Amino acid sequence: MPRTPVAEHEARVRALLSDLSTRASEVVALADALGRVTASDVVSPIPLPPFRNSQMDGFAVLSSDVVAVPVDLPLVGEIAAAPGMPAPLMAGTVVRIMTGAPVPEGADAVVPVEDTHVSGSTVSIARGRVSGEYVREIGSDLPAGAVVIPAGVRLASRHLGALAASGLTSVEVTSPVRVAVISTGSELVEAGEPLGPGQIPDSNGVALAAAVRAVGAFVIAEGRVTDVAERFRAVLDAAVDAGAELVLTSGGISEGEYEVVRETLEPLGAHVDVLAMQPGGPQATASYRGVPVVCFPGNPVSSQLSFLIFVEPVLRALAGLAPAVRTTGVLDRALTSQPGRRQFLRGVRLPDGRVAPHGGSSSHLVATLAAADVLLVIPEDVTSLDAGAAVEVWDL
Amino acid sequence: MPRTPVAEHEARVRALLSDLSTRASEVVALADALGRVTASDVVSPIPLPPFRNSQMDGFAVLSSDVVAVPVDLPLVGEIAAAPGMPAPLMAGTVVRIMTGAPVPEGADAVVPVEDTHVSGSTVSIARGRVSGEYVREIGSDLPAGAVVIPAGVRLASRHLGALAASGLTSVEVTSPVRVAVISTGSELVEAGEPLGPGQIPDSNGVALAAAVRAVGAFVIAEGRVTDVAERFRAVLDAAVDAGAELVLTSGGISEGEYEVVRETLEPLGAHVDVLAMQPGGPQATASYRGVPVVCFPGNPVSSQLSFLIFVEPVLRALAGLAPAVRTTGVLDRALTSQPGRRQFLRGVRLPDGRVAPHGGSSSHLVATLAAADVLLVIPEDVTSLDAGAAVEVWDL
Repeated sequence: MPRTPVAEHEARVRALLSDLSTRASEVVALADALGRVTASDVVSPIPLPPFRNSQMDGFAVLSSDVVAVPVDLPLVGEIAAAPGMPAPLMAGTVVRIMTGAPVPEGADAVVPVEDTHVSGSTVSIARGRVSGEYVREIGSDLPAGAVVIPAGVRLASRHLGALAASGLTSVEVTSPVRVAVISTGSELVEAGEPLGPGQIPDSNGVALAAAVRAVGAFVIAEGRVTDVAERFRAVLDAAVDAGAELVLTSGGISEGEYEVVRETLEPLGAHVDVLAMQPGGPQATASYRGVPVVCFPGNPVSSQLSFLIFVEPVLRALAGLAPAVRTTGVLDRALTSQPGRRQFLRGVRLPDGRVAPHGGSSSHLVATLAAADVLLVIPEDVTSLDAGAAVEVWDL
Repeated sequence: MPRTPVAEHEARVRALLSDLSTRASEVVALADALGRVTASDVVSPIPLPPFRNSQMDGFAVLSSDVVAVPVDLPLVGEIAAAPGMPAPLMAGTVVRIMTGAPVPEGADAVVPVEDTHVSGSTVSIARGRVSGEYVREIGSDLPAGAVVIPAGVRLASRHLGALAASGLTSVEVTSPVRVAVISTGSELVEAGEPLGPGQIPDSNGVALAAAVRAVGAFVIAEGRVTDVAERFRAVLDAAVDAGAELVLTSGGISEGEYEVVRETLEPLGAHVDVLAMQPGGPQATASYRGVPVVCFPGNPVSSQLSFLIFVEPVLRALAGLAPAVRTTGVLDRALTSQPGRRQFLRGVRLPDGRVAPHGGSSSHLVATLAAADVLLVIPEDVTSLDAGAAVEVWDL
């Protein structure tokens, strides 16, 4: 049976998830907004800075008084960075002023303290300043009513600082994608439960839920079911009822017996494929009660890498995250690859900067995957690579 | 006055914070462990896989029965991936077996279904398999008692998957650094409060707290005080009493009047400096009741960049995060720089991949900082750069 190209399934998942880009929004406090994505342009209700203030510790002057220097001028007061509006400056006088303090009406420049000498109530000014020097004008950073943070920005600390400087305390952000994660397999028990013969702890649910959270989405439900269609369907219904916008399943989609996901969803129109890739051949997409379902194989390495390849890029974009880092590395050894399969080999970066495959390619090697720090991607038409060859590297 | 080299202050902060590397630890559920750092080597109590199982859907055989092929063998049963221990395989027979199902005693290989043909209760095998083929041996991924995740690993989804596969439900991780953030300045009001003349919203506290959280530390206290020594001291005491391991302050450390941080901490041995950098000249370090205090200037851009330059690298390392990305870019235009100052210019990446300064260099431009996506770092001894010159770029 000819296998489906990876790119074809990639496009199918992307199309299935395209509706997710229409996001609801919610208003959150700035303290809770780190890493969230602005749902709309945020406008500053005030100008930044909100009043004309001094850029330096020094003396507020009328610039025409300091054209001819040196000049001695009487010191008539002091303005701190503190509440209150200072009295206007009389021409021919100066006031001491602190950084950030309001520049008084009548003054149009600040002479930094290092260009002055104070003796009693007289300030000797050694260097003149032109109008506007060391004065921060109202709105010189941002006028009132201007956009301080545009829509679609993933909020980092500097964005939250600008929102706070605008006097805002909350911000409208897109709601995270609500994802349900369902592990299938009669052999699975919840981690921590005693293992009987033939049983293994469910690791797919834990890994997929964490991978979902790591890219800013929200795990609204986690389920684990045996290979019984009614059980699976009940968990699917519960996920949809809980408001899941995307369901991820692992297991139950290959061509053996007891393939509960396939048996349930194929009659409902699921598209089930065997992809030209290793690991992760069997894959499916479906829609259940209008909710997109992306179905991964049950082997732990397969399900984790399938998420990374097909779903993570979509969720990253929705969370305003930059695409994952994909570079080219240099192989430290020769390797061979099965023709007609895109291979995703677990690998490590070596101290010399080269990359090497790590462990075997079998898809049950979950501890080996944990110890890897990169994936090496070998194209379908490449069957061998020499030591020193360039290879596509995905950072994990 | 000669200014202190940036590297000297950097080293002073690093030394001040060196005790933070001795971290307490806590045990958290796997669902809460994403992004946390393992405090100790984690050992798997079980072998991975925990029992010998099939890598394929196919037929479990005794390999010596399939040396001469084709061969017809009687099908005597079926083993699903489900609880229970299968009966031993009699030589000269085969059982159907699913991926992940236990390989019965007596069998030592699995023949994939695609190399077989079933007719009634007879399986024709077209291709032989040697002992061990398509059988996943107990512990072939990891033996029982071996380290599944070493100490010091920042837990990603694949690590949590391996811990769950080991039957674990929780993991010992280092406690996050407990940081207090204190903004000083009589001109500050809490964001959202009405602004009187001479007042601005406190943005430093919001931005620094978010920057602390963004690198995995914990904000244990946030405070904002006027330029009154007793108030500042009370907030410092409260932060230490709350268990802060690190205090960050903004404002109050330059040479003007009303410098509350300097006035309070210098008599207690604070080291106050003016650094050869722009923005962010005034900086200080102190120890208060045994707790390290790093003091930033009050201008919003200065305080945010000072955190990024001096404190963030230390917190990143403690959180197991990779160092921030620092690369070399190509300037799209000429620029000049003040001699004897390391300049940190806000900049943007242009569509053609070059970088350009963005907005002015004044340290009140908080909206301009928010709109920047890189910093351009100009060394102390460089006074001009041509268009096309290489420049150090820090991604924000």
